[in-house]
Amino acid sequence: MPAEPIVYFGDTARLPYGTKSAETIRRFAAEDAEFLLGRGVKLVVVACHSASSVALLDLARQLPVPVLGVIEPGARALVAATRSGRVAVIGTSATIRAGAYEQAIRNEAGRRVGQFGRFEVIARATPLFVPLAEEGWLENDVAEAAALRYLGPLAAERVDALLLGCTHYPLLAPLISRVVGPQVRLVDSAEETAAEAERLLAGRGLSATTASPGSLTVYLSDLTPNFETIGSRFLGEPLGDVLRATAGKG
Amino acid sequence: MPAEPIVYFGDTARLPYGTKSAETIRRFAAEDAEFLLGRGVKLVVVACHSASSVALLDLARQLPVPVLGVIEPGARALVAATRSGRVAVIGTSATIRAGAYEQAIRNEAGRRVGQFGRFEVIARATPLFVPLAEEGWLENDVAEAAALRYLGPLAAERVDALLLGCTHYPLLAPLISRVVGPQVRLVDSAEETAAEAERLLAGRGLSATTASPGSLTVYLSDLTPNFETIGSRFLGEPLGDVLRATAGKG
Repeated sequence: MPAEPIVYFGDTARLPYGTKSAETIRRFAAEDAEFLLGRGVKLVVVACHSASSVALLDLARQLPVPVLGVIEPGARALVAATRSGRVAVIGTSATIRAGAYEQAIRNEAGRRVGQFGRFEVIARATPLFVPLAEEGWLENDVAEAAALRYLGPLAAERVDALLLGCTHYPLLAPLISRVVGPQVRLVDSAEETAAEAERLLAGRGLSATTASPGSLTVYLSDLTPNFETIGSRFLGEPLGDVLRATAGKG
Repeated sequence: MPAEPIVYFGDTARLPYGTKSAETIRRFAAEDAEFLLGRGVKLVVVACHSASSVALLDLARQLPVPVLGVIEPGARALVAATRSGRVAVIGTSATIRAGAYEQAIRNEAGRRVGQFGRFEVIARATPLFVPLAEEGWLENDVAEAAALRYLGPLAAERVDALLLGCTHYPLLAPLISRVVGPQVRLVDSAEETAAEAERLLAGRGLSATTASPGSLTVYLSDLTPNFETIGSRFLGEPLGDVLRATAGKG
């Protein structure tokens, strides 16, 4: 969607969300959304799996614009990727504890009646993957030891698709793939979420006209010293200007 | 100080501080102190090395009660522990970047004129130690690989004392000691800080009367699911009642 004006808000002053209680994540997510509404957005994408897992329903009820999370797109991509009907999802403690992914995956599998005999979902919290990615330790012996400890037992479970249920995990995808083996397809909800956002805007007649130049404006609640490095590592290109902003009362 | 009423505030909704910018840490520390003043405290101990490193001067200027950090007590304990005058300090990114420990250690060493020939301080950020301790991985292969990567090079530096410059690191002390070797004394600023707090209260006539029963009241900005586990692991006993409170606008 190169024509769309995109406003990004990263709550760097209060991250990570994945270790916090559901109550606090809901409060922070509401404040973050309020900030984005103040910038005049026409759609809110909750691009954090922990916030999507526990706060999406609240946001959908409270906000005057459509809200899209990453859980259902991720679940759809995962169910489309499996042949055996044995899948796994990994995420932060908050995401896995909430159980929203398991629920969404089962719902999605249930829609494909007859395609699977018995459908199995294994959910596992892998909290150290976030600080490992933040440290830039994506392939070294520490990252490998952590991946073996978290994911080694998955080999015996004979899953054929694994959902990377946290924004940071795709950075660790090469290592994760080596540990779980080439027979396991890794699924990232990002592309499916972007496609869903495009459909949603088009369906409501909200898409930008193709003549518009588009833009990306990045706001952060803290200008953390390593955001530039990590942000461009994710985006694959420089971030451009980054502005400091305070969400709610954060 | 069993007779003292102690009010503890843990900013669990916004931790960790050690990855944030100095500006944001100062703002959060001021809000945390304001909360404690509202509970009527007579002394504020900044028991976080990152906040002590960047916010102590501001707090000392702003607060109407004495303020004590962990940096100077830690530096004193470290300099008392070394024989060779070659020491090291480890901490979060924010703590090491601020350079407050190096400064305090050099000041302290400078006071002991003639005791050391050349005095050497090596400072190293070891950010993954906090999430490892939070995960309870204190001795396993992941923790060991991280410790070797961070501290292995210290062996060649021939230091004889190492300051654990972060609240979480004492939990990893057995592993750290194995990696750096028995010739390196590990120094924790907690005891020296407590002793300094006692001296400071006595010196100003602020100590509780010995007849008073004392108390510990724990406030947290988020009732995180694993606080009970981690808190009692630190304290060595159950925490008692834990109350939810909001600091500043957090």
